[in-house]
Amino acid sequence: MRCRTCGSKAVINMPQHRLALCKTHFLEWLPVQTQRDIVKYKMFENSDRILVAVSGGKDSLALWDLLWQLGYQTEGVYINLGIDDGSSYSHRSGEFAQAFAGERGLKLITIDVGSEYHETLPQMAERTLRGREKPCSVCGLVKRHILNRVSVEGGYTVLATAHNLDDEAAILLANTLDWSMQHLSRSQPVLQSAPGFTHKVKPFCRVYERESAAYSFLRGIAYMPDECPHSTGSKQLYFKAYLNDWEEKMPGTKLRFYNNYLKALDCGAFPARQQSSEDLSEQRCPSCGQPTTTGGLCSFCLLINKS
Amino acid sequence: MRCRTCGSKAVINMPQHRLALCKTHFLEWLPVQTQRDIVKYKMFENSDRILVAVSGGKDSLALWDLLWQLGYQTEGVYINLGIDDGSSYSHRSGEFAQAFAGERGLKLITIDVGSEYHETLPQMAERTLRGREKPCSVCGLVKRHILNRVSVEGGYTVLATAHNLDDEAAILLANTLDWSMQHLSRSQPVLQSAPGFTHKVKPFCRVYERESAAYSFLRGIAYMPDECPHSTGSKQLYFKAYLNDWEEKMPGTKLRFYNNYLKALDCGAFPARQQSSEDLSEQRCPSCGQPTTTGGLCSFCLLINKS
Repeated sequence: MRCRTCGSKAVINMPQHRLALCKTHFLEWLPVQTQRDIVKYKMFENSDRILVAVSGGKDSLALWDLLWQLGYQTEGVYINLGIDDGSSYSHRSGEFAQAFAGERGLKLITIDVGSEYHETLPQMAERTLRGREKPCSVCGLVKRHILNRVSVEGGYTVLATAHNLDDEAAILLANTLDWSMQHLSRSQPVLQSAPGFTHKVKPFCRVYERESAAYSFLRGIAYMPDECPHSTGSKQLYFKAYLNDWEEKMPGTKLRFYNNYLKALDCGAFPARQQSSEDLSEQRCPSCGQPTTTGGLCSFCLLINKS
Repeated sequence: MRCRTCGSKAVINMPQHRLALCKTHFLEWLPVQTQRDIVKYKMFENSDRILVAVSGGKDSLALWDLLWQLGYQTEGVYINLGIDDGSSYSHRSGEFAQAFAGERGLKLITIDVGSEYHETLPQMAERTLRGREKPCSVCGLVKRHILNRVSVEGGYTVLATAHNLDDEAAILLANTLDWSMQHLSRSQPVLQSAPGFTHKVKPFCRVYERESAAYSFLRGIAYMPDECPHSTGSKQLYFKAYLNDWEEKMPGTKLRFYNNYLKALDCGAFPARQQSSEDLSEQRCPSCGQPTTTGGLCSFCLLINKS
């Protein structure tokens, strides 16, 4: 297999793009693709102050590295969830994030859930029925709240997460099996800013997981290699496996699935999308002040205050 | 496992409904469920003249038997596609359909594709690129055209097909992966009549395949047991296998998927749905006179006339 650009030995073959590339040209190609989507979906510009949500894993460190290489103004935020039962998962993840930032002289904000909210994520999950059944759901809620809080308080104009195509396609598939209109209207590359909400973007939404993994590896980025111990049996991992099956049999399935979903949105599918930011502009949580649609305490404050 | 109604030994357990039933009560239960959907989705009434599309397989003979038992005015139509290379598939299927109708004194119309259109289905499929790649797609086109023609010419007020929940969920999943707005707006229990189009209904759309199979078996209906030799590797069978996986792990997945899709349609998920019958009311194929959106010959006549 030869690099399409220079003819030297390829390090990666991407049947979904009918493209094989050598190390040099792959490391050029991925930033070009990502920059194209940043422009296409109006994610941000050079003047924006971008907060990158960093887990210490391959995707988020690849994204931060790539945005930094492209010259964007980026700072990172790492949320220490306190998932340290035996595996030291959170502790080790934080070390990778700090080492990455330190080597590049980039600012990393660390939020320690255990000390700020008097409980670690596993403790919150264990205390609630929702958390015992679906720890990933509670974790998502906590991270969304904290990321929004930190980006609003810090005056960042953009919050970037490293959701890749495999993540987005798996979530989309799970949401489609439920036909959840609210969720199906929101799996987009950009969630517009609204009062109390930072502009949220997913620059890797059309980047395959193996492409971001290859980028990290070829750039020599040291990242946390383990999956979160709580994610075993999660809905997202479950559906990722099926999408991988289909991708193997029909290369490009994930990309077509996501691209065609975006086209369907543009053709007027799931009109609820149009209303979401308006719904949120008026109601605020009386405890934390973040926007909410519940009419009372937001879901995060309900979780924190539930005894 | 005991029958929920009478406590005797159950012959079928349906985890998706948390229900086990004996033979007697299952054979009572399925018609009640089907009748409920016939009313719920305004499929037809006692005064309607119903044409049942019959393949000779378990689903269509179960449907015809059940509608006949419920006292509806039904006649059947069997399309002999000429799939007889070695397997005598069409010939044997037709014999099951005729035997069924003969035993019950019901009228069965037989359409012989080879003699009416001078080519069997396998010959049409072999002659076209679309047919060589996707024989099931050409077969669907041919059957839709003929069923509509026969039901309009015969003055039937309703055309009933025996698509079951497994069929509908598999087609829906395949269409969702493509996000085909046109197709996604049409996977409904009822397609309203329009000028040139008979009212089309799927009374088994929420009946699991194993339920219709059990009905045929327990009612002693002799049916064609083989799958069509052309269906090997079809998209529908491919996705059925995945849905079976999910159903096994999460009982009720197929039903939730389909039910929630119908709810999403009602919430306006695919606005295109509203326009489909209007689009079709004006344009007619200059050759066969059936409605078409192509602006010239309909897809069926294009297929027939292509040399």
